[in-house]
Amino acid sequence: MGIHFGGDYNPEQWPEEVWAEDLELMKAARVTMVTAGIFSWAKVEPRPGDWDFGWFDRVMDGLAGAGIAVCLATMTASPPPWLSRAHPEILPEDADGRRRWPGGRQHYCPSSPVYRAHAVRLVEQLAARYAGHPALTLWHIGNEYGCHTRHCYCEVSAEDFRRWLRERYGSVDALNAAWSTAFWSQAYGDFDEVLPPRTAPTFPNPAQQLDYLRFGDAVLRACYLAEKEVLERLTPGIPATTNLMPQHKPVDAFAWAAHMDAMALDFYQDPYVPDDHIRAGYVFDLMRSARSGQPWMLLEQAPGAVNWRPRNGPKPPGAMRLWSWQAVAQGADAVLYFQWRQSLGGAEKFHSAMLPHGGTDTRIFREVCELGRELAAVPGIEGTRSRAGVALLADWQSWWAVELDSRPSTALDHSRIALEHYRPLFEAGVACDVLPPQRELSGYRLVVAPNLYLLTAPDAARLAAYVRDGGQLLVSFFSGIVDEHDRVHPGGYPAPLRELLGLRVAEFWPLDAGRSVAVGGDYAGRADLWSEEIDLEGAEALARFTEGELTGRPAVTRHSYGRGTVWYVGTRLEPALLRRLLDDVRAAAGVRPVLPGLPPGIQATVREGSGGHYVFLLNHGTETVEVGLPAPMRDALAVPRSAGAGAGAAAVDRVTLEARGVAVLMEP
Amino acid sequence: MGIHFGGDYNPEQWPEEVWAEDLELMKAARVTMVTAGIFSWAKVEPRPGDWDFGWFDRVMDGLAGAGIAVCLATMTASPPPWLSRAHPEILPEDADGRRRWPGGRQHYCPSSPVYRAHAVRLVEQLAARYAGHPALTLWHIGNEYGCHTRHCYCEVSAEDFRRWLRERYGSVDALNAAWSTAFWSQAYGDFDEVLPPRTAPTFPNPAQQLDYLRFGDAVLRACYLAEKEVLERLTPGIPATTNLMPQHKPVDAFAWAAHMDAMALDFYQDPYVPDDHIRAGYVFDLMRSARSGQPWMLLEQAPGAVNWRPRNGPKPPGAMRLWSWQAVAQGADAVLYFQWRQSLGGAEKFHSAMLPHGGTDTRIFREVCELGRELAAVPGIEGTRSRAGVALLADWQSWWAVELDSRPSTALDHSRIALEHYRPLFEAGVACDVLPPQRELSGYRLVVAPNLYLLTAPDAARLAAYVRDGGQLLVSFFSGIVDEHDRVHPGGYPAPLRELLGLRVAEFWPLDAGRSVAVGGDYAGRADLWSEEIDLEGAEALARFTEGELTGRPAVTRHSYGRGTVWYVGTRLEPALLRRLLDDVRAAAGVRPVLPGLPPGIQATVREGSGGHYVFLLNHGTETVEVGLPAPMRDALAVPRSAGAGAGAAAVDRVTLEARGVAVLMEP
Amino acid sequence: MGIHFGGDYNPEQWPEEVWAEDLELMKAARVTMVTAGIFSWAKVEPRPGDWDFGWFDRVMDGLAGAGIAVCLATMTASPPPWLSRAHPEILPEDADGRRRWPGGRQHYCPSSPVYRAHAVRLVEQLAARYAGHPALTLWHIGNEYGCHTRHCYCEVSAEDFRRWLRERYGSVDALNAAWSTAFWSQAYGDFDEVLPPRTAPTFPNPAQQLDYLRFGDAVLRACYLAEKEVLERLTPGIPATTNLMPQHKPVDAFAWAAHMDAMALDFYQDPYVPDDHIRAGYVFDLMRSARSGQPWMLLEQAPGAVNWRPRNGPKPPGAMRLWSWQAVAQGADAVLYFQWRQSLGGAEKFHSAMLPHGGTDTRIFREVCELGRELAAVPGIEGTRSRAGVALLADWQSWWAVELDSRPSTALDHSRIALEHYRPLFEAGVACDVLPPQRELSGYRLVVAPNLYLLTAPDAARLAAYVRDGGQLLVSFFSGIVDEHDRVHPGGYPAPLRELLGLRVAEFWPLDAGRSVAVGGDYAGRADLWSEEIDLEGAEALARFTEGELTGRPAVTRHSYGRGTVWYVGTRLEPALLRRLLDDVRAAAGVRPVLPGLPPGIQATVREGSGGHYVFLLNHGTETVEVGLPAPMRDALAVPRSAGAGAGAAAVDRVTLEARGVAVLMEP
Repeated sequence: MGIHFGGDYNPEQWPEEVWAEDLELMKAARVTMVTAGIFSWAKVEPRPGDWDFGWFDRVMDGLAGAGIAVCLATMTASPPPWLSRAHPEILPEDADGRRRWPGGRQHYCPSSPVYRAHAVRLVEQLAARYAGHPALTLWHIGNEYGCHTRHCYCEVSAEDFRRWLRERYGSVDALNAAWSTAFWSQAYGDFDEVLPPRTAPTFPNPAQQLDYLRFGDAVLRACYLAEKEVLERLTPGIPATTNLMPQHKPVDAFAWAAHMDAMALDFYQDPYVPDDHIRAGYVFDLMRSARSGQPWMLLEQAPGAVNWRPRNGPKPPGAMRLWSWQAVAQGADAVLYFQWRQSLGGAEKFHSAMLPHGGTDTRIFREVCELGRELAAVPGIEGTRSRAGVALLADWQSWWAVELDSRPSTALDHSRIALEHYRPLFEAGVACDVLPPQRELSGYRLVVAPNLYLLTAPDAARLAAYVRDGGQLLVSFFSGIVDEHDRVHPGGYPAPLRELLGLRVAEFWPLDAGRSVAVGGDYAGRADLWSEEIDLEGAEALARFTEGELTGRPAVTRHSYGRGTVWYVGTRLEPALLRRLLDDVRAAAGVRPVLPGLPPGIQATVREGSGGHYVFLLNHGTETVEVGLPAPMRDALAVPRSAGAGAGAAAVDRVTLEARGVAVLMEP
Repeated sequence: MGIHFGGDYNPEQWPEEVWAEDLELMKAARVTMVTAGIFSWAKVEPRPGDWDFGWFDRVMDGLAGAGIAVCLATMTASPPPWLSRAHPEILPEDADGRRRWPGGRQHYCPSSPVYRAHAVRLVEQLAARYAGHPALTLWHIGNEYGCHTRHCYCEVSAEDFRRWLRERYGSVDALNAAWSTAFWSQAYGDFDEVLPPRTAPTFPNPAQQLDYLRFGDAVLRACYLAEKEVLERLTPGIPATTNLMPQHKPVDAFAWAAHMDAMALDFYQDPYVPDDHIRAGYVFDLMRSARSGQPWMLLEQAPGAVNWRPRNGPKPPGAMRLWSWQAVAQGADAVLYFQWRQSLGGAEKFHSAMLPHGGTDTRIFREVCELGRELAAVPGIEGTRSRAGVALLADWQSWWAVELDSRPSTALDHSRIALEHYRPLFEAGVACDVLPPQRELSGYRLVVAPNLYLLTAPDAARLAAYVRDGGQLLVSFFSGIVDEHDRVHPGGYPAPLRELLGLRVAEFWPLDAGRSVAVGGDYAGRADLWSEEIDLEGAEALARFTEGELTGRPAVTRHSYGRGTVWYVGTRLEPALLRRLLDDVRAAAGVRPVLPGLPPGIQATVREGSGGHYVFLLNHGTETVEVGLPAPMRDALAVPRSAGAGAGAAAVDRVTLEARGVAVLMEP
Repeated sequence: MGIHFGGDYNPEQWPEEVWAEDLELMKAARVTMVTAGIFSWAKVEPRPGDWDFGWFDRVMDGLAGAGIAVCLATMTASPPPWLSRAHPEILPEDADGRRRWPGGRQHYCPSSPVYRAHAVRLVEQLAARYAGHPALTLWHIGNEYGCHTRHCYCEVSAEDFRRWLRERYGSVDALNAAWSTAFWSQAYGDFDEVLPPRTAPTFPNPAQQLDYLRFGDAVLRACYLAEKEVLERLTPGIPATTNLMPQHKPVDAFAWAAHMDAMALDFYQDPYVPDDHIRAGYVFDLMRSARSGQPWMLLEQAPGAVNWRPRNGPKPPGAMRLWSWQAVAQGADAVLYFQWRQSLGGAEKFHSAMLPHGGTDTRIFREVCELGRELAAVPGIEGTRSRAGVALLADWQSWWAVELDSRPSTALDHSRIALEHYRPLFEAGVACDVLPPQRELSGYRLVVAPNLYLLTAPDAARLAAYVRDGGQLLVSFFSGIVDEHDRVHPGGYPAPLRELLGLRVAEFWPLDAGRSVAVGGDYAGRADLWSEEIDLEGAEALARFTEGELTGRPAVTRHSYGRGTVWYVGTRLEPALLRRLLDDVRAAAGVRPVLPGLPPGIQATVREGSGGHYVFLLNHGTETVEVGLPAPMRDALAVPRSAGAGAGAAAVDRVTLEARGVAVLMEP
C-alpha cells in the first residue's frame, strides 16, 4: 500500500468539467488518497433538510475509479449560512460577551445542542449514503477543532459548564473546596450561580479558569465523539480520525488519542523560522508517542507558502521534500497537503496548493510529482515503528495552569520551554518520545520533565518510583508546585518532589525582562527568565549562581535516589549550557544517538518492523555533507526511476547528502 | 475675485458681542470667505422641529455686510443629543457589535433612514431660508465624511447592505459566484442570510469585505447626495462640495468627484514629519486631477498646531505661508483654515486658529494677515490650470483589496507605496497627475502604475493599448493579480498583464520584517518588503537579485511592446534606486521638469490660463538658494504692499529664496 | 500602645484547627493588630438574609483573648455569587458597554442602589453584633476603592450621573456653558439626554470626561459614606478608615481625608524598580499631609514578593525591614501586611505572607518576627509628628484634566511629573509636605507647583498672595491653563499666573518622542517632553534654549513679586538639572535638610511630640556608611533584646549604617 500521498480535495470550487482533469493529474502525481468534503455542507444541504448528494456521488465514484482512497470529511466544520440565520444562538461569544459572526469558518459554539443535532443529522446522511463505497477508506471528523473558536463563553456554554461541573464535583461544597472560593468571597451556594470565567474586574479565580480550559477541551471532544458514535454505528470497520494541530493549547492531544483510530496532524513549517524543523521534530515525536508508536498521518502541510502568517514565504527548492520525508522518518504513514488545486477566490487563494495557479508548468507541481514518485518507489515503510530511550514529559494540565494570570512571572511560555528541552536531544541525534507523566516510564533510560508546574501527588510518586528503581530523571524549575486544583502542595516547594530532588525551594526569583545572571561551577555561563533560591537537603550543587541576590546558591543539582539519579535545574540555562548538561545526563543514563558522529544539521532516525529496517538521513543544513554508515546499506532513493521497488541499488558505507538532501537506507 | 481666503466660522461658541469684532478682524486679515454652520444643528433646532434661525440670520447678514462670502454648511455632521436619545438606533456599531456613543461627533449610522430623514428635513429648512441670501456662495455638505465612523455594522446597515447587494448582483447565484462562497461552505440560499463582515472567528470572506468597503463608500455618498438633491432643487445655481480628507481609505475621491461642483480638501501637514510637503504634493495633485484640472479648494488647514496627534508641534515661522502657497501652486483657488477664532472649551481648544487664544498680538495672527495681504496682491491666479506629462495611477479598488487579510504579506501599505512612487517624480520637479486607471491616458508621455493588485481585464487591456500606441509605462510589483471580485486571474501571474510585461511571476516572495536583499545590474542597491520570482517571456532584465533564494532572478525588467515600452519592478527598491530608475524611465519618455536645474528642495509649478502665466517657486529646504529663470519674470510677492496688484515689480532672471521662501513669478 | 504591627487575617481560608496555631504564632511575631473579614461576606451570609456569624464570633473572641486588636472590615468589597446572580444589574460595564463579570472581586457598579442596600444591610448586622466587642478597635470600610472597577458606564451609573449633574449645575444651561457644548453641536435640551462619556467615534467632550472622573470619585466616596453612617450610628467612638492606594487616579485622597478618622494606605514597593523608595517617600508624605500631619497607617505591604506584576521579585534580605521603618519614619503609626498566612489556593496564593507556604522556618517569617520585636522595643513613637518647610502641590483635578485626550501632547504623565519634582527634595534630605493648592501655604518657606494645568482663578490668586507676602514659589510648565470646566483662561497663557510669573507663553512646543533640546545659561544641560515659547514680561531668564526652533527663548525664569520670588520652568529639565535648580531655589528660600551633610542614599526624618524626639536614619544604598550626628543620641534599635524599652543604649555621636540599615535615635 505504501505511504499515503495526496491532499485536501475541494471540487465544489470548480466546474464539473475540471474534475476529470483533476483525476488525470492526480494519477500523474501518484496521489493515493484525498480528503474530500471538508467544506461541503452548504452544497450538500443548501436548504435545511434539502439534501443534494448527487454531485458528491460523482466525485466519490470518480476517485474510486481512479484508485484513489478517500479520507471522507464529515462536513461539519463550517455550518452553512441558513443554520446560523435560523439559530443565531449557535454563534460563539468571547470572554467579553462579543459574538463571533459567520463569514469565516468554525463559527459555532461547541456546546450548542442545536449545532450538534444538525451535525449529527448530516453525518447520519453521509455515513448511510457512503457506507460500503469503494473509495471510503477513513473518516475525517470535523476539522482543526478549536483552531479559531478556542473557547465560547455564551449562556449555552455556561449551562453546559455547570452540567460538566456537577458531574465532576458532585456537590457544590466539593466545588468550593477545589476552587478555593473562600478567598475573595466567592463561595457558591448552588451550581446555578457558576459562570464561565468571563472578563472580570481583575484576575478570575484560577481554578475556575483551569477547569474552563479542561471543559473547553472536553466539549470539543464531545463534538467529535457525537459524530464518531454515528460513524461507528453506520460504518463499522472504517477508522476515524481528525486533524490535530501542533502545540495547540485548547486540545489535549494525549486525551484525544484514546478516541482516534490514528493520530493525525496538520503541520506548517515556517520557511522564515530557522530551525523550525526542530519544532516539527517535537510535534512529530509527540504524535508518534501519543498512541504508543502507532504510525500517524500528516494530514495537511503546504507545498509552498501559506497565507495566514503576517509574511508568508514560499518553501525554497527541496524544502518541501525534506520536510515531508522528515514526517515519514518520524513515523508518519501519510503525507497529505492542503490542498489539491489552488483556489481562485476566497480566504485561502494565496495558500499554495499541489496544483498552483500557474498550472502544471510550475516548480511546485514538479516537486509534488517527484515526491509522489519517490514515496511510491520505497514500499514497506508503512507500519514500521521506532524505539526511543528518552522520554520528554509534556502535559496540557501544567501548560494550562502555569500560563494563567497571577503567577510569579507571566513570562513562562510552557510550550516554548518544552521545546527548549527537546532541542538539545534533537541536536544530539537521540530518539525521543514525548509523553504525558501518567504513562509507563520504566522502559526509558532517561526522563526529562521540564516545568511540570501542576503535578499531582500520585504522579510525583510515580516519578520518584521511576528513579528509585534506577531511572535517570531531569526536572526543571517551577515543577511540582500545585495539585490538580491549582492549590499549592503544602510543605515547602516543591513538596511532592522535595525528598526525590533532595532540596527545598525557599523562594521564587523570576528574573526581570532583559536581565540574565551568571552561573558557575560544572556548568558556567548565563541564565535568564527564572531563578530559585534553593536549599540543599541531600542533593549536591553542580552549578551555582555567581551574580545577583542568589550568588552562591545552587542553580543545578544532582541527587542520588534509590538506584537512580535525579538532576534539577532551577533556572533557564542558555541553550549551549542546557545542551552540555543534557549531554552529561544522557551519558550518565547510557543513551546513545541513533547514529554516532553525525555532522551538525543531520537528522537520523530508524523505523523497523516486518516491512524492513529503514534508516532515514535528512540534511537540514545548507552544506553538502558526507555521512559514514555503521554498516553497508542501500539508498532506496538512489534507485533509478525505471527500476523496481528497492531493487538494484548497491550497498554503500557512505552517503553524500546535499543541502536539504534525504537518504532512505535499507539493509541490503 | 482672487484666491479665497478664510476659515471655519463657529459663532455659536461666542456671545453675540464678539461677532462684531470678528467681522472687523476678518476684514483686517483680508478674509474673503468663511465656512459657517458646520456644528450648528443643536442651536438651530434645539428641540425636534423647533427652529431657531434668528441668530444665524444675523451671522449671515453680518458677513454679507462685510463682503465676506459664505460657504454654508448643511449642519448635519453632528446630530444633536435629542436625536440620538429619541432614536438610539441611529448610533453606529463597530464590527464587534459595540455601539459608538454621542459625546464626540459623527455618531450616526450612515445607512440610518431616521438620520437621513432628519438631515434632509434640516437641509430643506436651511436651503429655503437662505436661498438668495447675498452671502450664500457655496454649499458645504456634511463634514469630513467617514472621518471617525468609517463603517457601521449594525442591523440597519446590514439591511442596507443586502439592498445594495441585490441591486449589484441581481441573484444570489451571482453573489455566490462573485464571493467564491463555495470555499468554507459559505453559499447563500437567500440575500436575507447575508451579513456585514462582522468579526468572525477567522478571516471573513475577502470578497464580502471588499464589497463592504465599496458599500461603505457608497452609503456615505448616498448621505451626501440626499442632501445635494435638496440643494439643487431649492438653490439651483449655487455650487456644492464637501471637504474630503487626504489618502482617506473609506472615501473614493475619484468616485465622489463626479458629484462635487469643486473638489475640496482638508489637509494638515505635520511639522514633525520631514518631507510631509511631498505627501501634500501627492494629495494636492490628486485633488487637481480628480476633476480634470479644475481648481480645487483647500477648505481646512491649521495656522499652527493641531490637537489630535499624539504630540502636536506648531508650525515654525514661514511654514504656514509656504504650505498655503503650495496648495495654490498645485491648483487651489481657496486657502481656508480650521478655524477662525480659537475655542476656549471643547475637544479642539488646543487646535490653533487664525485668531489664537493670545489674541491679535501673536505670531499666528500676524502671519495670517500677511498671507491674506499677499493673496490679495496677486490677482488672476484663480481659474488658471496646470498641465502634466506624467500620470500616476491610484485606485481605491486596489487599495481596498490589497490590504485585506489573508494576503501573501500584511505589510503592503497601498497608499504609502503610491507615495513612494510619487516622491521621485516630485523631487525631480516633474508635473504629475494622479488618476484612476479608468481615465484616458493617451495624452501622457509616461504612466506610473504602482501595485495595482486589483485590475480588471478591460483596464489591463487599456494599459496594454496605451503602450502599444507608443506610451511608456512603469508597473510595480503585485499588480494585475485579481479581478473586481478579488478572484485571481487564471493563467499565471499577472495574467492580464503577462503579454504586455513579457514575463510571468512564478511565486511571490514577500520579504520578512527587517530583511532586505541586494539587487545588481543597471540598478544596484538594496530592496525590501517584497520580491517576486520572475520568469522572462520576452522582457529583458535590467537588474537582478544578487542575494537570497532569488539570486540571479530579474528584479527590474523592460519590454518593448508595440510602439511603446513597459518597465516592471518586482520588489521595493530603496528610494535612491527607485529615483534613478524613474529618472531613466522619464528620460526615455521625454518628460522634462517644470524648470531645469533646480536645487534640491525647490518645488516649481506652473499655472496658466486667461488670467495669466504664473510660475511658483517654493523653497521647502532650510537654506537660502538662488534660482535662475529661463526668461525674465516679475515676482508678484516682491511688490511692495503699497503698490497695486502686480504693478511695478521689475523683471528679474534670478530669484533668491530664503528657507521656506516663496516666489510667484508672472510674465512681465 | 506602640506602633501597630500585623496584617490581613483571612481565617475562612483555613480549617478551624489552624486558628489556634495562628494565635500562637501571632504572639510569637508580636502582632498587635489584624484586619479581619475583608472577604467574609459569602461566609457570613451564604444565602440572602441567612446570617452565619458564629464562626466569626470565635475568630473575634480568640483575637481578643490573645490581646490582638481587630481592624474589622465591613466585608462589602466582594459581593457573593448569589447577589450578582439575583441582580446582574449590579455588575459594572466599561465604556464600550462590556459587562464585567464575577470571578475576581470588586464586581459591582458603585452607583447601584441594590448593591448599596445589601452592603448597608450587612454593615448593620456586623456593627450591631460586634459593638462593644473587646477586640473591635477600628473599622475598615470596603477595600481598595476603585482598584479594579475605576468607573462604570452602565445605565444605572448614567442615571446617577444625571442626578449628580443636576445637583452640581442646577440648570441645563449651566451645564451647557460649563461643558462648552456649543462646539460639535452638543447642546443638551434636558439633563435626561446626558450620558456617561462612553466610547464615541472620536474624543468625547473633555468637560464631560472631567466631570465623569469627579463623579467617579464622588460615587465611590458615597459607597464609603453610606457604610460609615451606619457605623457612626451603631458603634460611636470606634474610628473608621479605608485603605487608599498610592497615586491612585480614581480616588482623590485629599477629598477623602475629611471623611477618614485616620489616613490609611496600601503600598507595595517594587524590588525591581531602583529608587522605588522615593515613590514611597512621596506617597507617605502625601498621606501624612492629607490630615495635617496626623499619624497614618500602612495597612498593607508585602513581606516579600507580590503576584500581580508581570514579573514579581522577592524583597532581598533587609528590604522589608527598611521599607517598614521608612513608613514609620514618615509618620506611620501602624505597619501591617497583606496577609497573615499565605493562601494555598485562589488568585493570590503566590503573594507573599507573614507566614509563608514554607512555614516558620523561612527567612520571611524570621524577618517578620525580628521587625515585630524591634517595633515593640521602641515605644513612644506613636502620636509624634513631623514638620516641613516645603510644600509640593498635588491636585487630582489637574491630574484628571491634563491627561484627557485632545491635548497638545498625550505624553504628559501627571503623577510622574509630580514625582520628578519630589525626587530632588527627597534626595536633598528636605522635609516636604504634599498638599492640594487649596490648603494654607503661609507657613511654608517654599512651595513647588508642578504642572498645575487646571487652576481656578481663586487658587491662582492665593498662589500670588503667597508670593506677594514673601513666599518662594516654583511653577513648572503647562500650569494655569484652564478653569474648573477645562475652559482656557482667556488672556494669553497662563492668564491667571501671567502677572505673578512676569511672562507670557506664546505657544506650546511639545517635544516629539525621543527628542530632547539643549538648554544653556545658569542651568545648562538637556530637556525633553515639552517646551514653551516664553515672552518675558518682567521676569528674567535664568536659562534659555540653545537648540531647535526656540533657540534663544527662555527656558527657566525668575521673577520678584511683592516680597517673594517665583521661578518658572517651561520644559522638563533632565533630573540633575532640576536638582541643581531646586537646590538653588531651596537655598534662596532658606530651606535646610533635616540633617546636614548626609551621604547619598541616606534618608533622615524627625518625629517629635510628647512621646519624645526621634531621628530616623535609613540607608537606601548598597554600601555601609557612617553618619555623624549633630548631638549625641541613643540608637533605640541597638538596645539588646533583653533590655527594657529604650533602656541602656549609650549615647553616640556617629552611627554606622549597613546597606539597608536603620537607626532610630532618641535624645539621651
